[in-house]
Formats: sequence, structure tokens, C-alpha cells
Amino acid sequence: MTCPGDPTERRPTIGRGKKVRDAVLAATLAELADVGYAALTVESVAGRAGVHKTTIYRRWPDRDALVVDAVSEHVRTEVPAPDTGSIDVDLRELARGLVRWMHSPIGKAILSTMVCGEACAPEVEQGRRDFYRLRFAQVAPVIQRAIARGELPPGTIPSEVIKTMAAPIFFRMLVLPEPIDDAVTDRAVETALAAARAGVLRDRSCCPPGE
Amino acid sequence: MTCPGDPTERRPTIGRGKKVRDAVLAATLAELADVGYAALTVESVAGRAGVHKTTIYRRWPDRDALVVDAVSEHVRTEVPAPDTGSIDVDLRELARGLVRWMHSPIGKAILSTMVCGEACAPEVEQGRRDFYRLRFAQVAPVIQRAIARGELPPGTIPSEVIKTMAAPIFFRMLVLPEPIDDAVTDRAVETALAAARAGVLRDRSCCPPGE
Repeated sequence: MTCPGDPTERRPTIGRGKKVRDAVLAATLAELADVGYAALTVESVAGRAGVHKTTIYRRWPDRDALVVDAVSEHVRTEVPAPDTGSIDVDLRELARGLVRWMHSPIGKAILSTMVCGEACAPEVEQGRRDFYRLRFAQVAPVIQRAIARGELPPGTIPSEVIKTMAAPIFFRMLVLPEPIDDAVTDRAVETALAAARAGVLRDRSCCPPGE
Repeated sequence: MTCPGDPTERRPTIGRGKKVRDAVLAATLAELADVGYAALTVESVAGRAGVHKTTIYRRWPDRDALVVDAVSEHVRTEVPAPDTGSIDVDLRELARGLVRWMHSPIGKAILSTMVCGEACAPEVEQGRRDFYRLRFAQVAPVIQRAIARGELPPGTIPSEVIKTMAAPIFFRMLVLPEPIDDAVTDRAVETALAAARAGVLRDRSCCPPGE
């Protein structure tokens, strides 16, 4: 674990509002990359951001909410949800953005602490659940707009399309392992779209699967 | 690491041929489950199987070849390649067999030692590469028969169909995590078949993608 620094050396407390939020989130990401989820503490983030611990607790109820917020904001900014007017282009941009991020130093560091299968500590498990729920909500409009434009069938579940696109990419990174180039990424996108267009990714609680 | 047992307590060396092979492979799997890939040694497998180390080296060039052979044989037996005459049924049986195996104690133990992303030791990385190559060869006939029957387009790459089917299952286990029930498994199968039928999983080195 890194040391948050001697209090006498602490940088002066910075102003409130967006600057504080940005500084705390950046410090959280840096801590996460340095020490991992399990070892990260609100104290170490506070020291790194140059704020008091109470400043953090005023904005985030606990350590896990802080980490989830930091990672969600980071991914929302680094892998934005495109809106080009075409689901094929949007999903390809989203997938290529994901792959670029996965290969970045911060992406690798975050994934190494969040991808732990059954070996995850309970708080990590809850944190990643919350993160993925937020992330799927961030990108759902990409799919919803495609349904509205008639590019995908009504009832298509946005998170299922995103999961189907992401799954072959993570499978190659974690299981095989194989390099993830543009051909692999584009094939993952085309697979998700073929499945969605065939009605495989629709909500089936309402209606029988298409034959 | 478990102890292979005092030599004075060693079980008597068993006969040659298939019995030896089966005993060594079973001991390798048990060692793998107990101590993991990195800590497994030919000595500990020999002790466990009740054979001399040289008996193992006569049949397998090294530790890694032994592990790959043991895991391949095990998965081939536990998750057999079906041949029902229908790709929909075959792939569903294969996927459900994979999920059952993943949830079995030995399946969990093997996966926990082989799914390590970039954190894998080099010998584990080579071992899992060899294993997946063998595994894809074991199940390729399922896809090749479907192509021959006209159920899937010519040029469909068997290993791509298998990877596309397996990816959402591993993604749920390793990344999200989410429970893997029959609905999730069947959706993974239907996704792989929709992609294959749309021509997404064809070899593109020979021919332009279908429009």
C-alpha cells in the first residue's frame, strides 16, 4: 500500500465543488491503479487529493461508492457512447473504444482489480455489480436510438447487446488468450448485431421467440 | 503444496499401458485441483499415482505436456462433442455440458488455475494455448458436420462458432458476474448460430464479407 504522505507535507486543501470532486475522483483512480480495490482506503485517497477525509464522506457514503463513481466517470469519459445515426458505426466505435481503454495502463490496472471471478472480495463484487449497472445505463441510449430508428427489433434488451459485443473481447483477453485486433473487435460487433437482428437478444418474458 | 507422501508409504507401482496412463492423468488432475498449475510437479504426480517419475517421462516430454493431456482428456470425456444430426441441438448440448462442468468442483479448480489473464505464468500461458487448440480440434467436427448438412454457410470457421458460444458464458462468470442458467446458455448458443448464419464467422481471407 502506498503512503498518503506525511500530514505536514500535505498539499493545501483545494476549493469546493467540481474541482474537489474531480480531484478526489482522479486520486481514487490513481490509488486504485497503484494498490488495487481491496487495499484502497478513503484516507489514502484524501491524502492523495489533498482534501480532508470528511470532505470525501460529505459527497460519498463510503469507499465503495467512491470507487464505483470514479470508475464510472472515467469509463464514461474515456469510452463515450457514440451517436452517429447508425447502430453499426456506433457499436463499432464503442467496441474499439473499449479495446483501446482495455490496453491503456489505467484500463489494465482497473481491470486487473475488478476481474477476479469467484476470487473477488465481497466489496469488490458489489462494486463491480454497481459499476456494470451504471455502465449499461450509460450506453443503453445507443441501442434505444437504434430500436427507435428501426435498425433493431422492438424489445431488444440494450444491456444484452452490449454484453454480447463485449463478451468475445473479454473472452480473448482473459481466457484464450489471443490478441484483440480490429478484425476481432469488428466481428464481436457484427455478432452482437446479427444476434439482435435475429431476435435472440429480445426480452422473452413478454413474447415467444421469433421463429 | 501437498506432500506426495513418504516413499516408504508409496502404493505399489501399477502395471503398464492404459492403467498407468489413466492413473497418471487422474493424479495430474487431482494435483492440479489441489495445488494449481504453477506448483504442480512431475514428482508429486508420480507419488500420487504410485508410479516412478521415469514412467511419466517415458510417456510425456515434460510437466506441461502432462497437464495439457490430462485436462484435454478430462474435458473430452466430461463435455463430449454431440452428434444428434442438428446443429441447434448439438451446440445446446455442448454449451450446457460446458456450464455443468464449469460449476463442478474439478471444473472450478481447473478454471481457477487456467484463467489468469495477463497474470498467468509463462508455462501456464503455453499450456492453456495448447489446451484450447486441442479442445477446438475435439469439437470442430460438430460444426463441420453442420456445414456439410447445409445448416451453416460454407467457410464458417469451427473454432469461431465455439468461441462465440463460450464467450458470453465466461463473460458472465468472470466479468459481471451473473448466474448462468439455461436461458443464458441457450441465448449464447442462439447468438453463435445467428452470427454463423449471417456469415459473420466465415473465413474472410478468401472472400469478401456477405452484404
